[in-house]
Order: sequence, then C-alpha cells, then structure tokens
Amino acid sequence: MSLAESLQRVIRDLEEAGGVAIVGMDGIVVEEQKRDAQIDLQVIGAEFSGLFKSAGTLSESVEFGAVSELMTTAERSVVILRRVTAEYFMVLVIRPDGNLGKARFLLRRAGSQLKTEL
Amino acid sequence: MSLAESLQRVIRDLEEAGGVAIVGMDGIVVEEQKRDAQIDLQVIGAEFSGLFKSAGTLSESVEFGAVSELMTTAERSVVILRRVTAEYFMVLVIRPDGNLGKARFLLRRAGSQLKTEL
Repeated sequence: MSLAESLQRVIRDLEEAGGVAIVGMDGIVVEEQKRDAQIDLQVIGAEFSGLFKSAGTLSESVEFGAVSELMTTAERSVVILRRVTAEYFMVLVIRPDGNLGKARFLLRRAGSQLKTEL
Repeated sequence: MSLAESLQRVIRDLEEAGGVAIVGMDGIVVEEQKRDAQIDLQVIGAEFSGLFKSAGTLSESVEFGAVSELMTTAERSVVILRRVTAEYFMVLVIRPDGNLGKARFLLRRAGSQLKTEL
C-alpha cells in the first residue's frame, strides 16, 4: 500500500477526520490527504513537529521515556500526533466531537503499515 | 468536596493512576495525591505546565482555539493535562496500559467539581 493509500484509508474510515499527513521531524510534510480543504497541513505539520520534539525531550527528562503519541484537544479541533519512525510522524486533525478511540486505532494501524514504507 | 478529596477520588477510581495534582499555570503544585511514591508531581507539574502553554499558543496560532486537554503517551507513563480554570490545570500520571477513556472521564468530572473551589 502506498503512502497516499494508507492516508486515504484513515480519512475514508473516519468521517470526523479533516486531514492526515506524514511529516518529517524537520516539520516538512511528505504526503497528505484532506477532507476539509481549509486545513493547512503544511503549517500544522511544521508547528506541531516542534511541540512533539519538546514533549519528547521533557518526557525523557522526567524518565518516562520516548513519546509515541501526543494529543491536543482544542475548541475547534483535536490533533493527534503519532511517531512512525525516528524520522517521521503522522498528524491527524479531527473534529472535537469525533471518535478519539477510533482515530487512535486507525492511526496506529496506518503507522504499522507505513513503517515499512518510510 | 475539598481539593484533596476530589483528587483522592480520581486515584481511588483508577487503579492505573500513579498520581494526580492541581497545578498553577506557573508550574507550582497546589494539591497532590499519589499512589506511586516514586512519582515527583512537583517536577512533572513544573515541566508540563510549559508544554501546556506552548500547545495553547500554537493552537491559537493555527486558529484551533484554546487547548482544554493535552495527552502524551510515553514508554513508561501516560500524562494527561486538563485545564480547569484560566489559572489552574490538573495533571494525571497513569500506566501506559491504563484505561485512557476512564482516565479522561474521571479528570473531566474532577475538573467540574474543582472549578467552583479554585
């Protein structure tokens, strides 16, 4: 399955998903799929990569180990970041009333598929 | 219900919880309850308050609005932060295999109770 197909599958299986992308730890988007054309995954990827790195550094400093997932719930969107490899993570933007359990499951499944492609 | 009682209730109702605290946005712990004596909630509160603030600034910058919750999943612990008022948030540390849905529910419930006390 190609990178684009793996991402399309997440969007297809989760109606509340606005967009999903594979992002390098440098903040640059490798591949993206959107339902909501308004969502700028380039900007979100760039901004959230910094937050993901900060969370990782912080987690190591308090001896909780490497961070595999980060989720922020805001007024208009929930953002889930999930580490795929040392160099890449996925970012998923969903509506705040979305099914977070399903979102996390789909991201985990896509991440396992993508691991072999990246 | 006192601050301590609200926190005790979270710990009591969630076996996987290692500790829970009410923390000011300045990173200072107001009240804490622990099951796992090893967990240093003072340090965690101080460190994660910075991450919570960064997430809020970032979320506003991409027009997602204020962040009410942040969750990090790491190798040895999951940390959930939940905004209670403009000045205070709660931090809950649970085992990575813990029931995250229940943890989020208990934190939401405790947050509603605490809102009137803070």
